[in-house]
Amino acid sequence: MLNFSVGPVMMEQETLRIGSEQIPYFRTEQFSETMIENEVLLKKLTHATEASRVIFLTGSGTAAMEAAVINIFNENDKLLVVNGGSFGARFKEICDVHGLSAEELHLNFGETLKSEHLEKYDRKGFTGFLLNVHETSTGILYDMNLVKEFCERNQLILVADAISSFLADPYDMSEYGVNATILSSQKALALPPGMSFVLLDEKAQERVLQNKVKSLYFNFKNYLADGLRGQTPYTPAVGVLLQLRERLLAIEHVGTDKTIEKVAYIAQDFRTRMKQLPLELAPGSSFSNAITPLRPTGEITADRICNYLRDDYQIYVCPNGGSLSKVLFRVGHIGAITIDDNRKLIEAFLDMQKKGLL
Amino acid sequence: MLNFSVGPVMMEQETLRIGSEQIPYFRTEQFSETMIENEVLLKKLTHATEASRVIFLTGSGTAAMEAAVINIFNENDKLLVVNGGSFGARFKEICDVHGLSAEELHLNFGETLKSEHLEKYDRKGFTGFLLNVHETSTGILYDMNLVKEFCERNQLILVADAISSFLADPYDMSEYGVNATILSSQKALALPPGMSFVLLDEKAQERVLQNKVKSLYFNFKNYLADGLRGQTPYTPAVGVLLQLRERLLAIEHVGTDKTIEKVAYIAQDFRTRMKQLPLELAPGSSFSNAITPLRPTGEITADRICNYLRDDYQIYVCPNGGSLSKVLFRVGHIGAITIDDNRKLIEAFLDMQKKGLL
Repeated sequence: MLNFSVGPVMMEQETLRIGSEQIPYFRTEQFSETMIENEVLLKKLTHATEASRVIFLTGSGTAAMEAAVINIFNENDKLLVVNGGSFGARFKEICDVHGLSAEELHLNFGETLKSEHLEKYDRKGFTGFLLNVHETSTGILYDMNLVKEFCERNQLILVADAISSFLADPYDMSEYGVNATILSSQKALALPPGMSFVLLDEKAQERVLQNKVKSLYFNFKNYLADGLRGQTPYTPAVGVLLQLRERLLAIEHVGTDKTIEKVAYIAQDFRTRMKQLPLELAPGSSFSNAITPLRPTGEITADRICNYLRDDYQIYVCPNGGSLSKVLFRVGHIGAITIDDNRKLIEAFLDMQKKGLL
Repeated sequence: MLNFSVGPVMMEQETLRIGSEQIPYFRTEQFSETMIENEVLLKKLTHATEASRVIFLTGSGTAAMEAAVINIFNENDKLLVVNGGSFGARFKEICDVHGLSAEELHLNFGETLKSEHLEKYDRKGFTGFLLNVHETSTGILYDMNLVKEFCERNQLILVADAISSFLADPYDMSEYGVNATILSSQKALALPPGMSFVLLDEKAQERVLQNKVKSLYFNFKNYLADGLRGQTPYTPAVGVLLQLRERLLAIEHVGTDKTIEKVAYIAQDFRTRMKQLPLELAPGSSFSNAITPLRPTGEITADRICNYLRDDYQIYVCPNGGSLSKVLFRVGHIGAITIDDNRKLIEAFLDMQKKGLL
């Protein structure tokens, strides 16, 4: 099996080795030390401020998106949500479910966020800004410096979902002025799915402490308090957190820049090789290194390409859902993927082409 | 390491083997089949009705407790919560956070639920009943036939947290008239923590479909809909779900009764062997097979016993929190524990006794 999906992705041998070990009891000093190390390393790798804290939430990325929104904002806020695809739409849906006032900055398929989009919302009384650094459904990577300037001049609390961008594209929480960053285990961290992480700067923490949250499981106050001694309020995915420590140490050892460069290199290699194929890059001028969104130029639809690759070559790429299912599919470049794996994928495409399927 | 904690517990070799494998992409027919098999098997092992459904929620047991409560009940309900320890108290806290009307049936430490406790609440306008089949903090196992009768004659919706009882004690959702059962991966299922399961009978499903839930992640409507095709709305802990299938098949092969008998046998063996030690069973007349709650009779406190076992013998037992930390600790009997492991634990106790520590 070769997995070019966007998560869960292929894991390193050391991660798998830890996955084969018994999980220890976790209400211990030893596990607390691991958790405190995880917090320090996640802060370092995201360039969070010294005073930032990390919430370790057992759940999918959506759980962390929802928990971040309801812990940081309330009915006095007016939020601007960038909706350039299904994950932007999800942020809006979360706001709606909780009765939070949220306006959508809608981008068309493949459209990049520009200053003219943002200028319309200047001095309109917004208090918060929600976006997905990389809109995973289309591959578009937003310009965080643009977002930073807009949020600074309007004094907005900035909540960024960096789930599929972290460790694939440069990310600097301090430089971008991000108040809360949402991460998940199964993307470029290349761990099993099940854990999500929310980094909170001082301002976000203040909001969390003042806010009244109508949830027990999602109440960050309890996580902040227990986190001081390296624990969580409820049993976390202990195994994934042990794998996280190993991964973070390995990434720190290599360096975040080098880790990102590797993903960029794999992505660039694939994008160069695919030029010989009847596939074209989806519209857009700025893509994440995490994935390459592709449109078939022949008669075959995108979903059928995904099915052929799976059935005939045991290669998994990422189909799109909903209205994009026939016109778009995505090839991931995160996880334990190599240039040789790219070569195998291209060979499969060429073979399909030879058979008249592509 | 020997782990006699109450979860995460020691896992079987086959579970660990799957933990060492790459996690496949999950939006596939193959994974859907696995999930549908998981649903069928979980229903079979809990004796759920044919029309029952299973919610696969990525999160801790508390996430599932909260999600079950807010999906099944609303502000028109009047709930009775059995609070015989910290997990009963958690159900009450969840109701309070969500503004649900809930009265506590308080039991003292070691007190068992009796008909005279329940009779006081007859014909008082209650609509729902919440309890932990096994109150994990004290070891007390409630009489589900008593609960069934009370709920039937008062026509209450019965939500039962069977997290630490399932596969350790006999459990029959249909026989007990339970409308919703909450389970978690890291107890007697002996899987890594991270996944929880909520079984809903027809009545509970009706309530879910009619209710308005102020949460996206916890909204069971989406899980019910996607579950029809063996999928979940958000990326689940795929690896744990693959391990679940293998475990459920293995348990089905051996038989649920035999699986429970094995836990009962390990528990009985420990309880017989411990009679030679200066430890006594905590108060109570009916205990779960999952754990033995113990009180030291000598001068040493319960928490120090746990620390000695950990530091000097690499054996983990389960300390109690809060006001019980010095007087109570618990020895678990779930997971891949053997009679030989019991013997090693007893030897450690005897060695402590010889050294004058117990």
